[in-house]
Amino acid sequence: MDSMRIGIIGLGNMGTGHAKYLVRGDIKGGVLTAVCDERQERLEWARQELGENVRTYADIDEFLRSGDFDGVLIATPHYSHPELAIKAFGHGLHVLIEKPAGVYTKSVRLMNEAAAASGKVFGIMYNQRTNPMYQKLRDLISSGELGEVRRTNWIITNWYRSQSYYDSGGWRATWAGEGGGVLINQDPHQLDLWGWTTGLKPKRMRAFCHFGKHRNIEVEDDVTAYVEYENGATGVFVTTTGEAPGTNRFEVTGDRGKIVIEEGKMTFWRLRVPEPEFNATYRGGFGQPECWKCDIPVPSGDGHQHTGITQDWVNAVTKGTKLLAPGEEGINGLMLSNAMLLSTWTDDWVDFPIDEELFYDKLQERIRESKTTKIAGEYTTLDVKGTH
Amino acid sequence: MDSMRIGIIGLGNMGTGHAKYLVRGDIKGGVLTAVCDERQERLEWARQELGENVRTYADIDEFLRSGDFDGVLIATPHYSHPELAIKAFGHGLHVLIEKPAGVYTKSVRLMNEAAAASGKVFGIMYNQRTNPMYQKLRDLISSGELGEVRRTNWIITNWYRSQSYYDSGGWRATWAGEGGGVLINQDPHQLDLWGWTTGLKPKRMRAFCHFGKHRNIEVEDDVTAYVEYENGATGVFVTTTGEAPGTNRFEVTGDRGKIVIEEGKMTFWRLRVPEPEFNATYRGGFGQPECWKCDIPVPSGDGHQHTGITQDWVNAVTKGTKLLAPGEEGINGLMLSNAMLLSTWTDDWVDFPIDEELFYDKLQERIRESKTTKIAGEYTTLDVKGTH
Repeated sequence: MDSMRIGIIGLGNMGTGHAKYLVRGDIKGGVLTAVCDERQERLEWARQELGENVRTYADIDEFLRSGDFDGVLIATPHYSHPELAIKAFGHGLHVLIEKPAGVYTKSVRLMNEAAAASGKVFGIMYNQRTNPMYQKLRDLISSGELGEVRRTNWIITNWYRSQSYYDSGGWRATWAGEGGGVLINQDPHQLDLWGWTTGLKPKRMRAFCHFGKHRNIEVEDDVTAYVEYENGATGVFVTTTGEAPGTNRFEVTGDRGKIVIEEGKMTFWRLRVPEPEFNATYRGGFGQPECWKCDIPVPSGDGHQHTGITQDWVNAVTKGTKLLAPGEEGINGLMLSNAMLLSTWTDDWVDFPIDEELFYDKLQERIRESKTTKIAGEYTTLDVKGTH
Repeated sequence: MDSMRIGIIGLGNMGTGHAKYLVRGDIKGGVLTAVCDERQERLEWARQELGENVRTYADIDEFLRSGDFDGVLIATPHYSHPELAIKAFGHGLHVLIEKPAGVYTKSVRLMNEAAAASGKVFGIMYNQRTNPMYQKLRDLISSGELGEVRRTNWIITNWYRSQSYYDSGGWRATWAGEGGGVLINQDPHQLDLWGWTTGLKPKRMRAFCHFGKHRNIEVEDDVTAYVEYENGATGVFVTTTGEAPGTNRFEVTGDRGKIVIEEGKMTFWRLRVPEPEFNATYRGGFGQPECWKCDIPVPSGDGHQHTGITQDWVNAVTKGTKLLAPGEEGINGLMLSNAMLLSTWTDDWVDFPIDEELFYDKLQERIRESKTTKIAGEYTTLDVKGTH
């Protein structure tokens, strides 16, 4: 196949961005042919801005049945991703979903099963996987340069959001609308990269979420999580939207030293010999292995980001290449986020894989007991430049 | 009083160091007049190296009854600090104890009560309180520059210790000998500074200790702790002796930005207006308060350290000045350390102040059930240069 036809569901902040670069022709072999949104105002915008070659639909089923496209990019609110993806696979379509994969793993597992059964190409908009910094970290760990990983520590507190941000959308930061706060909206990339770069499998987690601590919202806006991995390593993840300027510092320790990513730089404190080897032979008191502080070269910029992932998905469909961000992997980051909430709600450990039914039930309780006065339909379109 | 006479109990690694600078005359108004150690080899060393003006004792009671000195510096193994201090107060002596204050808070509380009843000057060798870096941090927080503190995060993993270190002393890293591992031996300074610099009072804690994870020892050598403070702030403390080169990074976040101490530098990311003020008035989407990255000037060097604390104690006795490190405050850091172990042993939250009886009982269980083959009397004197 030389090229594929693409439809987009959802012309909100993200879907609008995807539509724009597609009609600009930024994606080789990818042609936007149709869009779908239930809001007439957005369809009006599409007719004016996207040109007459892009058909517009208000009805999802009509859109999916149309035969106008080979694959669909789903950029709707979080909850609907699995349901829409399952429908699309049912129509024999390739699928690229926005992050997060969904809100709870039960529905995401069903989506993954539908994807597998369909044999279609299923991608997820984990655009941070195109970032050379995290690609380099993954490379250094998977190639063994860091040795066996022993500890991860991600302080990701630079997601500052003011009360006015939360007030701009009726669905924002509500259990019914988004199904969570900083974990489901701001952190999905870090939650994905945490596992993708290190290759570690979580075994159990204990987490401490605070709800509406810094803002007048009902969901979590401050989280500290502790994880134990299958290989015996441990990890810490600290996040909030309430602090300024915040920090984005990711430290990974291994047998061979430590790597720190902070302020756009990667530094590798590299041991000349692996620590276990030093320890086995050293006979003195306070000695430690010789260590070299190495500045690791990383191509500048953030990589191709959204266009990179869309191009990658189009290539996988048209050329049969391997996906950088397979949709099936979306469940991993989401399970970490679900585990953090579940551990807080049960005030207890959560084992992996998590109890998807229990999480679902607890989430429904929050939705039922919600006292929010927000109205899901009300929102202001925000300029998302500089965010992901 | 122009000067005071000082005795030292314990001529191990630390006591030997204190004796040396005292006989050199480094402490104004402080004169070493006697030392006590049950090991004849150390007394022989004292007679040869400290001169004939320093009397030597093998028996503690005889030493304390001697009348040879006005105050005593206690540099014995951890467990004995409270017992010896209480005896010394009973003899009307001023007391300066090495860190930690003790191994469990029950005995340390009794020591504090004895100190208060005696009216004597009671200090603790928290020499890191003389470090200009931590004095500056305390200054910036107590003066309100950082605003209300919201989060603390100390990664203190640069306490690398090889197996040969642990094998060098029979009492090392055993429940009976030291009563703990990295928390009781390496971390007491950080556990003190954590509270001393921030002024925060812990409310409850959940911690995760691993015992003999990196070394063949029975005590904790890898710890992650999460704390909630009375003012609503949260904190994380991560420590180990098993990693090289490790990290020493202390981040404190407040209404007015964040301060980070790492690699001997202090940086203050200072908000132009406090975050709550910005949040109350901002009406846009993704904006955040203007932030200035400020390099904070700190006098170079580590301060006067041990001699600084000893001089401060002598000044308090001879001139009535206020102590930089009052002995009564030793219980604060120790309680954090006890809480981390107790939370792990009970696999549950620990509220402050901790249940001192429960901790004591759990510690005795570990001592009874110990399978260590180490012999407490066997040890090698290590060069402690560069450690504290």
